[in-house]
Amino acid sequence: MVKSSICTIGDEILIGQIVDTNSSNISRRLGEIGIKVTRMVSIADNHDDIITSLSRELDSNDIVVSTGGLGPTKDDITKAALAELFHSKASRTDPVQLQIVKDFLHSRGLDVLDINLKQAEVPECCEVIPNHLGTAPIMVFERPDGHRLYSLPGVPHEALGALDDVLEHIKCHFKTESIYHKTIMVYGYAESALSQLIASWEDALPEDVHLAYLPNTATGIRLRLSVYGGEREKDAAKVEKLLERLREILGDNIYSEEDEPLESVIGKLLRGTGKTLSAAESCTGGMISHLLTTIPGSSEYYLGSVTSYAIAVKENVLGVPSETIQAHGVVSSEVAAAMAEGVRRLTGSTYSVSTTGLAGPGGDERNPEG
Amino acid sequence: MVKSSICTIGDEILIGQIVDTNSSNISRRLGEIGIKVTRMVSIADNHDDIITSLSRELDSNDIVVSTGGLGPTKDDITKAALAELFHSKASRTDPVQLQIVKDFLHSRGLDVLDINLKQAEVPECCEVIPNHLGTAPIMVFERPDGHRLYSLPGVPHEALGALDDVLEHIKCHFKTESIYHKTIMVYGYAESALSQLIASWEDALPEDVHLAYLPNTATGIRLRLSVYGGEREKDAAKVEKLLERLREILGDNIYSEEDEPLESVIGKLLRGTGKTLSAAESCTGGMISHLLTTIPGSSEYYLGSVTSYAIAVKENVLGVPSETIQAHGVVSSEVAAAMAEGVRRLTGSTYSVSTTGLAGPGGDERNPEG
Repeated sequence: MVKSSICTIGDEILIGQIVDTNSSNISRRLGEIGIKVTRMVSIADNHDDIITSLSRELDSNDIVVSTGGLGPTKDDITKAALAELFHSKASRTDPVQLQIVKDFLHSRGLDVLDINLKQAEVPECCEVIPNHLGTAPIMVFERPDGHRLYSLPGVPHEALGALDDVLEHIKCHFKTESIYHKTIMVYGYAESALSQLIASWEDALPEDVHLAYLPNTATGIRLRLSVYGGEREKDAAKVEKLLERLREILGDNIYSEEDEPLESVIGKLLRGTGKTLSAAESCTGGMISHLLTTIPGSSEYYLGSVTSYAIAVKENVLGVPSETIQAHGVVSSEVAAAMAEGVRRLTGSTYSVSTTGLAGPGGDERNPEG
Repeated sequence: MVKSSICTIGDEILIGQIVDTNSSNISRRLGEIGIKVTRMVSIADNHDDIITSLSRELDSNDIVVSTGGLGPTKDDITKAALAELFHSKASRTDPVQLQIVKDFLHSRGLDVLDINLKQAEVPECCEVIPNHLGTAPIMVFERPDGHRLYSLPGVPHEALGALDDVLEHIKCHFKTESIYHKTIMVYGYAESALSQLIASWEDALPEDVHLAYLPNTATGIRLRLSVYGGEREKDAAKVEKLLERLREILGDNIYSEEDEPLESVIGKLLRGTGKTLSAAESCTGGMISHLLTTIPGSSEYYLGSVTSYAIAVKENVLGVPSETIQAHGVVSSEVAAAMAEGVRRLTGSTYSVSTTGLAGPGGDERNPEG
């Protein structure tokens, strides 16, 4: 299989100031075209570290995708390090990227500064893939052994925006195979109990089918079956055959056969039915509403929510009777039910969901209401 | 300086199924006790990869903190790999962890299975730090050269819950120095324009003070000053002196002198004033409310919100006049103002904030309302 390493460059990652989300997004896309990601590495904005690490990753991988260190300011030094790594003495200005830089700044009413123009300068030996979402070009370097390094900007929307073009380039230069993953979502078991329950099924899995357990407090357990390097259609059929038996064992405890969260399943159940949903939140502070609206097309069935952090808002906006609060406490199924009823009345939705609880860990109580 | 590498072990990270948040959390805590994180590496649940990578990281770092691969199921193989890496032939059962495993399962009403009991088994040569939040013990291995590996579970709340004990152990065995970071939040400049504006200040920075720019569409630019290996009080005083001049240059464009998001600044402005806040959201779907409630103590000033995804909810719950929507469109400052006014009336808050816009990228329009 064609192997790849993903390297993120930036002190902000190493000191824990930001979480690296580029690597997982790039990895997923590489997997889709059959590239196996063997390692992810984060390194500092340090000349020697960049050269040593990238060089080492290129030794053991066909492809290295790096992000970061391409900004116009002095703390970004990736480009100079790459020039040295690939023995590029001279530099050239890429005309396409230069025009993008100028247009980019003009459209924002910003002056074109010298440091902006320098963004379009690249080591002579590299190939350029234009970055249409920012000023730093994507640079492609090839080693004599055919291994290639793709240098992308670190800003997430620029890195991800350039990925289509980068993947096209990879597909032109590497012979890729199939990687097939199938994830199913299981609810209602502890990890060890589930593994016990499906032990004989798991033991009988063919050697090229790899099973993984991913437990999560909120979403239950994801079971992932992976097949590397076969033919996609055959692998899919093989996995489907294996799933038939698993469905018999787990029944309704499988709540989805795609790698998707609950809000996505809810969307599939509601879209096209004409039925609608609203939410009343307390301890979750708007997060459920936020998650529901992350699903494309959710405006078709999701009407809106009330976050009643204050008791007065529970009473005055959601119409929760103050007697109910006094009798059962704010964190009670009775109040949750009254909140759900209240938001359903307010918004006129078919269904509603509500939460009330303590914000502290472990203190949540969840009360869905039809 | 004492150097550390952080290694996460798990196929789910490499195929991009989950984002690794452990590394940044661990890194921040290591930095606080003066340990410099030089690299972060993610590797697969693969015996040879684990041994090769951990061994290599231990060669060039005093400390390696690894997470993951310690679950009870067959796909988790870190413990066996560590036994081989540290030439541990025999294993022993840790009595403290064994009791935790039993209590853990009993308290959840779960049967104690053989694979659960095996969780308390560790390679003979390692030291154990009990994990009170899960079944897998924290294992500490020492090499003849004094370099140490700390193996933590991958489940985030278990990894982070064990960190206090791990850091105590590190402080006992390594002589740590100071790392001082100071971050200020700047709004209203493009990255290149800001770097131009403060160029002469930046050029005059002492050699041991490192400046970094972290641009972000929502929060503006974070400027971080870092000093490694000095004395904390002196470093802090030195940086404070440098900031005096920066404040003169940037004035009100500095909205905080801590590394904190806007919702945290809002909390500081409102706490103790008796003034309150509410929110009306559309395109942001509850995210602003969610962010506001992530601030500890926000219940003191934050009353709640209405997410009006549907036009009917804007009209019926928030009282936005349908004439306003017809005259200006749903995405207009007039509707945003009416939404803010509506939620302020509903909740009785002193201030309110509202958003309306298109969910697509770049389509946001934000209209704060006093």
